[in-house]
Amino acid sequence: MKTAIVFGGSSYEHEISIVSAVTLKKVLASFPLSFVFIDASRDFYLIDAENMTSKYFSSGAYKKAKKLTLNNKGFVIDGLFKPKPLDVDVVLNLVHGRDGEDGKIASLLDFYGVDYIGPRSEASVLSYNKLYTKWFARSIGVETLPYEHITKANRNVATDFPLIVKPARLGSSIGVSVVHNAQELDYALDVAFEFDTDVIIEPFIDGIKEYNLAGCKADEWIFSVIEEPGKESFLDFEKKYMDFSRDAQVMQADIDETTAQTLREAFKKIYDPLFCGALIRCDFFVYDGTVYLNEINPIPGSMANYLFDDFPHILSRLARHLPKEHRITVDYRYIHSIQSAKGKA
Amino acid sequence: MKTAIVFGGSSYEHEISIVSAVTLKKVLASFPLSFVFIDASRDFYLIDAENMTSKYFSSGAYKKAKKLTLNNKGFVIDGLFKPKPLDVDVVLNLVHGRDGEDGKIASLLDFYGVDYIGPRSEASVLSYNKLYTKWFARSIGVETLPYEHITKANRNVATDFPLIVKPARLGSSIGVSVVHNAQELDYALDVAFEFDTDVIIEPFIDGIKEYNLAGCKADEWIFSVIEEPGKESFLDFEKKYMDFSRDAQVMQADIDETTAQTLREAFKKIYDPLFCGALIRCDFFVYDGTVYLNEINPIPGSMANYLFDDFPHILSRLARHLPKEHRITVDYRYIHSIQSAKGKA
Repeated sequence: MKTAIVFGGSSYEHEISIVSAVTLKKVLASFPLSFVFIDASRDFYLIDAENMTSKYFSSGAYKKAKKLTLNNKGFVIDGLFKPKPLDVDVVLNLVHGRDGEDGKIASLLDFYGVDYIGPRSEASVLSYNKLYTKWFARSIGVETLPYEHITKANRNVATDFPLIVKPARLGSSIGVSVVHNAQELDYALDVAFEFDTDVIIEPFIDGIKEYNLAGCKADEWIFSVIEEPGKESFLDFEKKYMDFSRDAQVMQADIDETTAQTLREAFKKIYDPLFCGALIRCDFFVYDGTVYLNEINPIPGSMANYLFDDFPHILSRLARHLPKEHRITVDYRYIHSIQSAKGKA
Repeated sequence: MKTAIVFGGSSYEHEISIVSAVTLKKVLASFPLSFVFIDASRDFYLIDAENMTSKYFSSGAYKKAKKLTLNNKGFVIDGLFKPKPLDVDVVLNLVHGRDGEDGKIASLLDFYGVDYIGPRSEASVLSYNKLYTKWFARSIGVETLPYEHITKANRNVATDFPLIVKPARLGSSIGVSVVHNAQELDYALDVAFEFDTDVIIEPFIDGIKEYNLAGCKADEWIFSVIEEPGKESFLDFEKKYMDFSRDAQVMQADIDETTAQTLREAFKKIYDPLFCGALIRCDFFVYDGTVYLNEINPIPGSMANYLFDDFPHILSRLARHLPKEHRITVDYRYIHSIQSAKGKA
């Protein structure tokens, strides 16, 4: 399956997207792969496989690579003479954070009719904004922790300490703080508002169980093992960064089958139909026997490959079951009928 | 203000977008205007002003116009030699329905850093899907009519007759039916599911008052007059089509100042900050003293120009107060620090 991995972007997670892409080059070695890099200025570059090292990007050496244009022939290699379309079966959207997970790249690919693995625009907008994720979860009957929505104009927080402060729209723990008192809260809000105009406050429940489950719907439901992530209160950005280069397979968490089944049922409600076409990871809490959705990662780090048995095979199956756009025929029926009413036809 | 009007698109409202654009050519005659047409295949064409007639598009004559590419230089006129960027200060997104109102064009323009008047991606997704509009309205304390969300898998409707059936994602009354009995309901659902996978059912309240209010936030709040639309139960597509060519100014509805003020307050809650950058029209119901949001038109037909006193001036003011993207600097700090930890720097 000729796959173009699109990575980078104008995002706080630009660098971890590079790490994800380098990791997937290894994991998907059996595929004919192309690498499409989006730099911070949103230019597209076609990267040779042998240049897929983080230094090639951090040094700026990538600027000598061939440039691409995206149009309704797909990615096209710019050239003085005849531009040449990049020969791919499917695009894998691996841009974490802004551009990739907020729906921009999805919209570009949808607009130009390019087949891709990744969340569609509605799914992106609902999962990128944690406030909207709460609304969505409620609508499908999946629990989330109680929350407050805080803006710069209204910094009054009613939640008891300890609590967690999260910018509404970022991933990878950027701008997130666990807060134990009023002084910490003030600082944590300042930090969060550096990144976003909207902030979510949730209770911080020490010792809450956390479980991650990835999957997708292809010819049938495909679920990963359920992972219990590390016991630290939460991963800071640098630890998450290392996390994005994971490729060693994980063992199933020590979890009873009833809870596991409850997690998979919640995953199905979240995924279908909104996330069709994507391979997502849902991070859940379990507390007092209740399952809560913490967050939806519609483009998880290194595609959560380490949670699956035969990741390349799963990606191929998903690529054969991508949502198709509803075809709209424009036949100018109304204009014709109005013209003939006016005697102009 | 050099303005490029973008219109057409792969949308059921492609034709009414042409009508809107032809109308705005007249209304904005004082501006230097360019016309960017998106055909049903999503090719961009630069249309000469003298060719801005509906027949030019319905006959296919537009195919001889110059083609454009959108990239991070904006709209660029394709040419055998040096491609030439289109010289504009601002783009006006006038694509009604899919592509324009679902966030695709917004994403393209945001991605490439083009200044535009129109709803941003989040605003588009929340207003394009009537179900999400309900969630959003609830979150800001604006009432909407009670509703049921119906899918093909679950066609059980509990709402009493008469009721109204609406595809969740379309505008301009496409696929909408008023239904008086079970037999009509079955047919109406079939029609609605032709257009969408999700359908909204609301009670149809005969004689409910309907008021439309347009506006935007520029240097200050700008509100249109409040219009009471025609008394027909609802406008069908052909009537709406004619409606999109309106340019004669409307009189304020016969409405008491308290209700008018309540409508403007609801408008403010809806608009700010989600719709900043757009000029929108909100359609409200008033029943038994309560104001209900019916729908948000983030790109109203002919931009609701007929509701304003000096429309070109208002558009110029809005163009000077467009939201700016948060700048993200990619400095490769993490990659550098990991490289130096590995002794590679």
